[in-house]
Amino acid sequence: MNYPNKKKPIKNVNNYANLGMTLESDIDLTNQYYLSHQIAVIHKKPTPIQVVNVSYPARNKAKIVEAYYRTPSTTDFNGLYKGRYIDFDAKETNSKTSFPLSNVHEHQVNHLSDVDAHGGIAFLIIGWSQYNEYYILFFKDLISFWQASKQGGRKSIPYTFFKENCHQIPFSYEPRLDYLSIINKLI
Amino acid sequence: MNYPNKKKPIKNVNNYANLGMTLESDIDLTNQYYLSHQIAVIHKKPTPIQVVNVSYPARNKAKIVEAYYRTPSTTDFNGLYKGRYIDFDAKETNSKTSFPLSNVHEHQVNHLSDVDAHGGIAFLIIGWSQYNEYYILFFKDLISFWQASKQGGRKSIPYTFFKENCHQIPFSYEPRLDYLSIINKLI
Repeated sequence: MNYPNKKKPIKNVNNYANLGMTLESDIDLTNQYYLSHQIAVIHKKPTPIQVVNVSYPARNKAKIVEAYYRTPSTTDFNGLYKGRYIDFDAKETNSKTSFPLSNVHEHQVNHLSDVDAHGGIAFLIIGWSQYNEYYILFFKDLISFWQASKQGGRKSIPYTFFKENCHQIPFSYEPRLDYLSIINKLI
Repeated sequence: MNYPNKKKPIKNVNNYANLGMTLESDIDLTNQYYLSHQIAVIHKKPTPIQVVNVSYPARNKAKIVEAYYRTPSTTDFNGLYKGRYIDFDAKETNSKTSFPLSNVHEHQVNHLSDVDAHGGIAFLIIGWSQYNEYYILFFKDLISFWQASKQGGRKSIPYTFFKENCHQIPFSYEPRLDYLSIINKLI
């Protein structure tokens, strides 16, 4: 058989519907790697759902027929690394210039603030989909931009701040997004 | 007005439908107390639900019309206390003599084992509804009974073991179930 020598160029598809989902699943894969290699125990919390009505079409099989998404009171990810409590959320932006603070909810900032106050490691993972770059934004940086924005300052964090002040997370096949390699340097 | 002198005896209602729910809501109240008094940051994880079908009867209002409960891969509660990672589940038994290990799922034991191995504080809160007593069963005790049961030993933990070896959690109005008072003695 004759195989063509020329590889077909892979189409660069920007699937906006999956924005955010990709980052989340990359983090899930990373956490599975951490767990199976006994590096850390970090899980995504389930999405909170308010169940209103359940039917039982068959024995022992509950079917939820009316339910609604609830606003989470905390962040999506937490767990344990080298005896330390880790807590974070993941955000993705399509902007090339700045990360809008409107992507972060007040209750998430409050929760990360509680975690920070009690000796946990609190941060956001920010994905820049236009650059395929991922950074850790520690709580102390987040809160200073957040408080400035509440006092009439800018409502976003410039990309240059990330480039100059934040740690970039290495992206590879396995582990996908090795964010603990950054945390490891700091503890 | 004449108030009767004799107090009516409060009926001792055993509402079996709420078994487990009561313990869970007592722990939720306790966690709210811990958070509002800046003692600890401990939350219940949402129940994991597999969403199959969502309809949009109105703008911005997603209504889940088909979904199913999934088996949790971890425990119900985790968080942070004095810089330490805390992880536990709550179980209630109606037995007067022993706590059946069938109340605990294998994945929960595995998760608590991971937590223990990585330096977290792992335990169960066991409620004895016939006695209105609550005990902390630390992972090391759970795992020794669990492993014995896998090797043909007894499938339950006797009440006397709790009385003689475990810390009883004080029950009061506020905080409802002060389990951290026990943890505090040990860290």
